[in-house]
Amino acid sequence: MSGGFRPGRAPALLPEVATPSPRIATRSLVHRNPFATVSAVHADFGSFAKDYYVVDFGPRAGIVAVNEGRVLLTAQYRFLLDRAAWEIPGGRVDDGESPEQTARRECLEETGFSCDDLHPLVTYRPGLDNVENLTSVFYSERVKEHRPFQPDPAEVLSLAWIPLEDCVSLILEQRIVDALTISAVLAYRCVVARRGKDHGRPAPRS
Amino acid sequence: MSGGFRPGRAPALLPEVATPSPRIATRSLVHRNPFATVSAVHADFGSFAKDYYVVDFGPRAGIVAVNEGRVLLTAQYRFLLDRAAWEIPGGRVDDGESPEQTARRECLEETGFSCDDLHPLVTYRPGLDNVENLTSVFYSERVKEHRPFQPDPAEVLSLAWIPLEDCVSLILEQRIVDALTISAVLAYRCVVARRGKDHGRPAPRS
Repeated sequence: MSGGFRPGRAPALLPEVATPSPRIATRSLVHRNPFATVSAVHADFGSFAKDYYVVDFGPRAGIVAVNEGRVLLTAQYRFLLDRAAWEIPGGRVDDGESPEQTARRECLEETGFSCDDLHPLVTYRPGLDNVENLTSVFYSERVKEHRPFQPDPAEVLSLAWIPLEDCVSLILEQRIVDALTISAVLAYRCVVARRGKDHGRPAPRS
Repeated sequence: MSGGFRPGRAPALLPEVATPSPRIATRSLVHRNPFATVSAVHADFGSFAKDYYVVDFGPRAGIVAVNEGRVLLTAQYRFLLDRAAWEIPGGRVDDGESPEQTARRECLEETGFSCDDLHPLVTYRPGLDNVENLTSVFYSERVKEHRPFQPDPAEVLSLAWIPLEDCVSLILEQRIVDALTISAVLAYRCVVARRGKDHGRPAPRS
């Protein structure tokens, strides 16, 4: 792994905020299934108290794999849409794996494409109180076919290489609705725009 | 509500994908807490079967409230970070509310600022198989102080108006980590960039 985003100016400032200091009174497991646990937390802040229910899916990782300005998307059947959705490759971080290893492995497993060089892109959480699912996204611009893609009705149905600006349009038209893909593609779009500006050369055509 | 993103060219194309057609054999509630339910689903696709566990938080909405190129952010204590996080206003869609009404109400309740004109920005799902939490994001560039902001240790601790490009930097530096805020700010950044391009005038300074 090398590179990644390097800000061309001083870090942006956020105001300092004095935060309340909770004393956690209880934390108990209230549900477990093969993909997640749910814990009930009672947090005592002194002048007030709050109850949280935390769904823990564990960490996951994804990758924006780019070739000549086109982004690699996979189509999988998704239960909550009841149709195929177009998404970047990604999945759960296995025990002992780094998020970077996961991103690399998922891309290879799902698409047959290997990524030479990974750059950190964005890290996010689906929820800050109730969903533990730390998501690390990388990008790679050195992507090669390692083995031919094999469609699998139970996993990836199809692949597509979509120009970056078309991916942005599909997001704004609500035809890509996956949070991972949206965060990843829009962050990559910003990195490309800033790189073009910082280096005095145009962003890659896409 | 008016306006919103209007693509300046033909819609981007995604390949058609023939999807498997599942017959849902069973769906049963396996956990309920004050914020979410968990259902176990066994889906039979014919040649294979899959088990899903769907955590349903219901829908939510958020808003990018903008004034002179600065984005309104709130600071709240967040349990999974164990510190205050900077986020756009937003929250759960109440029964009988539209997502637009929620975005408007949450902004007013959390910050004291009212939004005159709302535009749809991006709609996403935190998960496509396992988390039901449809999230609708709007933006408003007509924001007015309706009542003075009152900090509340149990809710919003502080407000800040952060220039749009600084928000993007904070996201790429992983100092804003909230999926809602990241998707919203990056999508708004793309809308501003395209508006500047489409109308032959520069994007607002931000």
